Amino acid sequence: MSTPVTASSPLGVFDSGVGGLTVVRALRDLLPNESIVYLGDTARVPYGSKSPDTIRRFSMEDTQFLVSHGVKAVVVACNTATAHALPVLQATFRVPVIGVLGPGVEATLADPSCERVGIIGTAGTIRSHAYQHEIAMRRPDILIEARATPLLVPFVEEGWTDHPALKSVLREYLKPMLDKGIDTLVLGCTHYPLLVPLLKRMLGQKVRLVDSASTCAAHVKASLEQNGMLRTTKGKPQLDIYLTDHSEQAENLAKRFLGTDFGKVKKASL
Amino acid sequence: MSTPVTASSPLGVFDSGVGGLTVVRALRDLLPNESIVYLGDTARVPYGSKSPDTIRRFSMEDTQFLVSHGVKAVVVACNTATAHALPVLQATFRVPVIGVLGPGVEATLADPSCERVGIIGTAGTIRSHAYQHEIAMRRPDILIEARATPLLVPFVEEGWTDHPALKSVLREYLKPMLDKGIDTLVLGCTHYPLLVPLLKRMLGQKVRLVDSASTCAAHVKASLEQNGMLRTTKGKPQLDIYLTDHSEQAENLAKRFLGTDFGKVKKASL
Repeated sequence: MSTPVTASSPLGVFDSGVGGLTVVRALRDLLPNESIVYLGDTARVPYGSKSPDTIRRFSMEDTQFLVSHGVKAVVVACNTATAHALPVLQATFRVPVIGVLGPGVEATLADPSCERVGIIGTAGTIRSHAYQHEIAMRRPDILIEARATPLLVPFVEEGWTDHPALKSVLREYLKPMLDKGIDTLVLGCTHYPLLVPLLKRMLGQKVRLVDSASTCAAHVKASLEQNGMLRTTKGKPQLDIYLTDHSEQAENLAKRFLGTDFGKVKKASL
Repeated sequence: MSTPVTASSPLGVFDSGVGGLTVVRALRDLLPNESIVYLGDTARVPYGSKSPDTIRRFSMEDTQFLVSHGVKAVVVACNTATAHALPVLQATFRVPVIGVLGPGVEATLADPSCERVGIIGTAGTIRSHAYQHEIAMRRPDILIEARATPLLVPFVEEGWTDHPALKSVLREYLKPMLDKGIDTLVLGCTHYPLLVPLLKRMLGQKVRLVDSASTCAAHVKASLEQNGMLRTTKGKPQLDIYLTDHSEQAENLAKRFLGTDFGKVKKASL
């Protein structure tokens, strides 16, 4: 029943919701000839506040859905799912499974002057200690200051990305790390690229921002090149967006995250 | 297999998460001799941003769970689920199903001087127009100003119920209704009772607050009395709390909403 996976097969991308479309946007910028199947588990969003067992179970079902759609690789465009489920996904499925976390860590450490790193993300991502662990394993000398920042996603989803209340929230969240003199801030959530303009204004040149969406896309490109799996087929690449729950709100958000309009959203049942 | 339902049977209460425990708290204040089985669908929380179909499907599964635990009545302690699913639940199940919405509307209109009503709630509750419709049907002359306020739940869950950023958010959300001179504000979400102290300070005596948790508990009491279903058994009543996802965060929140400690949380699979 399943078609064999070739270089012409689409990339699969999943996230707990529509935030992962910032990764799709970065992928389409870097790899405009690739077809993409996106799954947003909007019926069960968010994953960030749920337990590791539940996050792993949901992530397995999401990956199974993409694999059954014949994808050549799976991108876990969700920091929480990457932090808790990447090893079990990689051990279970035959296609390559790429998370957002590793590329973000690589990009963080690529700058040799990096000495003090702040990390922000959902409760699930920060509680997993996955970023902290990956960074500490490679550079035990680095100072790490991590904080769960659960109010940021709701502000992004409300579209209040330049609201005085958001600035006040960010000031409170970031104060302990700024007091410790961080030189790099890792945006450990796919919603956060939309906060970059405000963060740049608030932090100025002092703090380098590492966003997991664009670093992940660069990693996927390198991996496809290395394995000779870039799509060379002529003809327009396809973008299929599946959501487990479809609402007007999710569709409007999806457009904001993707940065462009798209065809009809399809309903997925997991 | 099922035991017959009697006056000694427990009340069933469900919510998309742990916010509905504010209703349990109000029930225990008013009906200290009743046993309660609570189900929080924390694996799929929140419902407020999801589509009507999905909300109905989840609510049916939640009610089925409680009914299979032998409850004598089901309280839908979730405004979103009440708004979208109450009629189908009442048509499907034999036990009485009581929502939070009707009692809130009754309490709103019980004050004959009420002329201008503000309503705040999740996107799902406000979009359903359920409160607006119920009020307009009974009192077509009343001015209604409703607004979805999706940032309030995250602030309550973060525990920042007295933060300057929350005040700024509330000022922005409430400004259009205050400009229209509302005399009553309906708190259409079971998280919002925790905002009452701040709202009272911000709004003073001018605006009456109607909270759906305590009005719902009063309605349940009246209904049990009317049907001769009050528990008269001696012996300590039981409180069983089931969650579909169990995390430390959910348990801490649950304690804040319930206002007291409780025994071990049980895991429910739907």
